[in-house]
Amino acid sequence: MTGFPDRLGRVRAKVDRILAGLLPETGRAERRLFDAMRYAALGPGKRLRPFLVVASADLFGVEERFALRCGAAVELVHCYSLVHDDLPAMDDDDLRRGRPTVHAAWDEATAILAGDALLTLAFEVLADAETHPSPTVRLRLVGGLARAAGAEGMCGGQMLDMLAERTEFEYGEIARLERMKTGALIAFCCRAGALLGGAAADAERALTAYAQDLGFAFQIADDLIDADGSEEEAGKRLRKDAGQGKATVVSLLGIEAARARAKILSEQAAAHLDCFGTRADPLRDAARFAVERSS
Amino acid sequence: MTGFPDRLGRVRAKVDRILAGLLPETGRAERRLFDAMRYAALGPGKRLRPFLVVASADLFGVEERFALRCGAAVELVHCYSLVHDDLPAMDDDDLRRGRPTVHAAWDEATAILAGDALLTLAFEVLADAETHPSPTVRLRLVGGLARAAGAEGMCGGQMLDMLAERTEFEYGEIARLERMKTGALIAFCCRAGALLGGAAADAERALTAYAQDLGFAFQIADDLIDADGSEEEAGKRLRKDAGQGKATVVSLLGIEAARARAKILSEQAAAHLDCFGTRADPLRDAARFAVERSS
Repeated sequence: MTGFPDRLGRVRAKVDRILAGLLPETGRAERRLFDAMRYAALGPGKRLRPFLVVASADLFGVEERFALRCGAAVELVHCYSLVHDDLPAMDDDDLRRGRPTVHAAWDEATAILAGDALLTLAFEVLADAETHPSPTVRLRLVGGLARAAGAEGMCGGQMLDMLAERTEFEYGEIARLERMKTGALIAFCCRAGALLGGAAADAERALTAYAQDLGFAFQIADDLIDADGSEEEAGKRLRKDAGQGKATVVSLLGIEAARARAKILSEQAAAHLDCFGTRADPLRDAARFAVERSS
Repeated sequence: MTGFPDRLGRVRAKVDRILAGLLPETGRAERRLFDAMRYAALGPGKRLRPFLVVASADLFGVEERFALRCGAAVELVHCYSLVHDDLPAMDDDDLRRGRPTVHAAWDEATAILAGDALLTLAFEVLADAETHPSPTVRLRLVGGLARAAGAEGMCGGQMLDMLAERTEFEYGEIARLERMKTGALIAFCCRAGALLGGAAADAERALTAYAQDLGFAFQIADDLIDADGSEEEAGKRLRKDAGQGKATVVSLLGIEAARARAKILSEQAAAHLDCFGTRADPLRDAARFAVERSS
């Protein structure tokens, strides 16, 4: 994994420049909204999702500027989901990435609107000709992101996550929840690389299989950080799932078995990439990173 | 205006069928989310925005099924905005269209997620080939709807509306607020008709001018209903602006002058349609309806 943090850091710097350009400062009366959007989207963040778009697109020789724009759109959706998930009515978090959450720094109304506007902006970005010269590719990106983020994907998963506090979910139901809540958007990142590059169906299938295992591994790692990690390293409040009695893979299997499951999923994810040879090493590194991280 | 209520009712029935098809009932665990989305989108509503898309598109001979799909997408955005605006952290309304609001009928988390998912679905609908055969037209619809609904449009306007409770806004600032909060989406409806029909630039400009005046008139009428209307007819709580000390055109000009202003704007809106002759009569009727309605 030598070089992975550097590679991730380079993508982060480029994506942050794009996001800053999409969210200019304004002196107008609605400044409050733009300030909250900038705060949510430009703060510290791993930018793993944009990295996955860039590394997937790179397999097909896509110009990096297209992959970065698409990655920025995905990151807008990810940031909106964090802002809304942190709201008092949802997960009620006042700390995120080591800083107050948006509703804690402003108020709930501003956080709701900033999330709404970030989500909306993601589709504006994808529809723009700067994202890719082909209208058909851009439309596939819009449709794919909408499906990944909507009721059959992320929103549905977050609904299930809320219900998991008061419902007895079994392993299969938890797996489905995680696949919708986290996996769908991560899977879209890799599919977006394939779409941008006009990849053959079997290459797209391999990437989707990789991303599905990666997404599940990533979410188990998140739950492990909640159960067993350091608040200082994570930059957010932990021990929340147990406090809320929320069913997760960790609560169902226990910490050690969950850690083993995450590792297996991460290796399985990497194995789907065999057809791409060493060119897919950045994606293999990402799969290892997803389960070894502490924040 | 003979026939206008019938015409509006026919569009409503057709749009409602499309919306019901987009929001199927489900027996799965995330049913709660779909139920809330259906409740928000399939309830009583005037469907004025879809009507404006259909009537505008009709000027250019667009097949009605395309205009109806596009109108359904706009209605999804309108319904999402009502769900979020009604939240306790925003306008805190428990009654809408004569029924409990979504967060009152379910809870806040479900209302936030249902709104998010409705907004996301709107872009999925527009990106789909069923909405129009031309990818370029569909992309323009996606980009146009995103701009109308986002931080420079509806979200920014709602932010200003929240600030209007504690800021001394002047008439020009209120006009800008209304243009963003209500006008942008209404203007998009008419522009969408022009986009679907590949209209010439001057026709699109005339429609945009019509829609901007109509949108402002519509919002003043809304504020008049709040100040002077019947709760039973309106189906929602009234006298809210005055109670919150919110600056509106009505609070700045008084009821009679505001009513006169709305009437002038409505007539001015209709005047922009001269180039279309009698074919634009449904849009002229809509402009009259916008200011004469009681709900």
